[in-house]
Amino acid sequence: MDERIDHIVLRQYVAQLLVRLDVPEADAEVTADVLVSADLRGIDSHGVARTRRYVQGLRDGVMLARAEIHIVHESPVTALLDGGAGLGQVVGARAMRLAIEKATAVGAGFVAVRNSNHYGIAGYYSMMALEEGLIGISMTNSAPLVVPTFGKDAILGTNPMSIAVPAGRERPFVLDMATSVVTRGKLEEYDRREEPLLQGWATDSRGLPTEDAGQVLRNLTGRLGGGILPLGGAGEDLGGHKGYGLGLLVDILCGVLPGAGYAASVYSKDESGNPLPANIGHFFGALRIDSFRPLDEFEDSMENIVRALKTSAKAQGQERIFIHGEKEWETTEERTRLGIPLHPKVVSDLRALGEELGVPYPA
Amino acid sequence: MDERIDHIVLRQYVAQLLVRLDVPEADAEVTADVLVSADLRGIDSHGVARTRRYVQGLRDGVMLARAEIHIVHESPVTALLDGGAGLGQVVGARAMRLAIEKATAVGAGFVAVRNSNHYGIAGYYSMMALEEGLIGISMTNSAPLVVPTFGKDAILGTNPMSIAVPAGRERPFVLDMATSVVTRGKLEEYDRREEPLLQGWATDSRGLPTEDAGQVLRNLTGRLGGGILPLGGAGEDLGGHKGYGLGLLVDILCGVLPGAGYAASVYSKDESGNPLPANIGHFFGALRIDSFRPLDEFEDSMENIVRALKTSAKAQGQERIFIHGEKEWETTEERTRLGIPLHPKVVSDLRALGEELGVPYPA
Repeated sequence: MDERIDHIVLRQYVAQLLVRLDVPEADAEVTADVLVSADLRGIDSHGVARTRRYVQGLRDGVMLARAEIHIVHESPVTALLDGGAGLGQVVGARAMRLAIEKATAVGAGFVAVRNSNHYGIAGYYSMMALEEGLIGISMTNSAPLVVPTFGKDAILGTNPMSIAVPAGRERPFVLDMATSVVTRGKLEEYDRREEPLLQGWATDSRGLPTEDAGQVLRNLTGRLGGGILPLGGAGEDLGGHKGYGLGLLVDILCGVLPGAGYAASVYSKDESGNPLPANIGHFFGALRIDSFRPLDEFEDSMENIVRALKTSAKAQGQERIFIHGEKEWETTEERTRLGIPLHPKVVSDLRALGEELGVPYPA
Repeated sequence: MDERIDHIVLRQYVAQLLVRLDVPEADAEVTADVLVSADLRGIDSHGVARTRRYVQGLRDGVMLARAEIHIVHESPVTALLDGGAGLGQVVGARAMRLAIEKATAVGAGFVAVRNSNHYGIAGYYSMMALEEGLIGISMTNSAPLVVPTFGKDAILGTNPMSIAVPAGRERPFVLDMATSVVTRGKLEEYDRREEPLLQGWATDSRGLPTEDAGQVLRNLTGRLGGGILPLGGAGEDLGGHKGYGLGLLVDILCGVLPGAGYAASVYSKDESGNPLPANIGHFFGALRIDSFRPLDEFEDSMENIVRALKTSAKAQGQERIFIHGEKEWETTEERTRLGIPLHPKVVSDLRALGEELGVPYPA
């Protein structure tokens, strides 16, 4: 049975773990906030279940607790930040705040980041813009897990992109999607349950369709060929080349543009097989709506389009049409009220981390 | 047998047809250039085969030959243009030039357009940025043909998006994709050949999967329910909600943001069933690469990522991995050299238009 834990208590606990690893308090808090936000939204694969990976990265020295973030280049509309191989959440939140400041001042702001690490859910950053009434954009590259159309080897990441748009009295539109058809988390879930993968999700070491989740995961770890397919699946019949294009676009904006790692060069290892700094890159943007059209008119139209979609006729057997982010808002409300349900394995791992680092797990 | 015709001759002919309908010469030339560019790139469904639709729109008065384009709002980074119900290509090219000027001056430029019409291929405009060494963005909303995930009725357009990125000595990356799994052109092709549609392409009037292209097309024309599925197909298993989200995003940026029509309100009819101005909207953007990182370093990395993908191992049975736009560059080179092959039906329609308008079809 999952145990429920209050999200504020959980956030404090995770922050304290990071502080014990020499992360400055404010940085630990933002990192914990990004992780717990994922759990609140129901994206458990990107939440506190990942804490050990960050702890391990800090211990290995491939993530630096006290990273020096610096501005490499800046103009009124753009900036390039170097994350100093620190926590992705810290430089991510700072870069997004800078994009928001620029957009507020001049109408649009774009900030690219290099030399960073896994930054959690893309939607955390795009949603920061909502509080200011702006459109927010956030994307990141990631470890090579996805095969290009007609390719055998995993070269691109699941490379998520998120766009958040305020919608007046309706809930904001928050698109937050991997550009692959599914994420590694989904394969791990099917592997645990020993269920066959769906056609169009993954390929084997020859680059052919497979239903065997365990084999795909082992092949990815060993870089033996095959991997997750882009959105649209194998080949071009169902638009797999479009998903591949979106994934490549994210790698261009997050890897190539800032001068971070890209394609198979993120999460490299040295000659002895030791991990090097990940050199993940991100790309953030914000647009001021009233640089185009008065905000109240825009919000009226957003309310209309949201309602038009939600009230439109359902396909036979279906009961509801969703707007992007809607399920996550509902989960957030429920989990804020009732607490976040944690799998027993996640609880025992968090407890173990607390024992290792001298932080008592909350009663 | 298809007849081949020189692209410059074809462009002049189409421009002359438009001039006879009172379109100013420069506007007729840009419109013809966008149409012929589609044929050159191999996107025949968006090329001169559509000439009659524009002629009809101009004759009906839902497209104005001498539209007044005006700037509704402008800032150093952004602008909103009203297309005056004129040709989408004319205001599209003007808006993209404005985005390019702004990006050249301050690092980024974004221009939204309302009160426009069908603007041809999205990629024409994004590629205008390449000549200036910029990243170009172009998207448009369109007639409602696509059902939202779990929905029965077609509410969104095929809403294409295009992003073009220079790549040094390699060919530029040009993503130009409908956010639906396929376009109406593809259904028409299957209908003509009486072939069954693939699973995941379209739904019938109940919102259930169908293989019957003719039925889907008739249902769309009569707005009887069903339509084309978003990228990722039906439901959420293969990521259909992602394609739906991308299509909605395009409608937000092209319809809601500029105050154009959106969702099912584009291409409306009046109470007597006569077509009203389409009120299509577009969104254009340009980013100056050296606002982030020196252009030559960026181009080196682009060359590397392109080569890494193209030279990577192929899936069993596959011979080639493509970069987006690559097939279209090759088709452009071939058709520039050998001429554009036109289907006999397209030729006879173009001839008929010439007779109606007093322009002799080229020998």
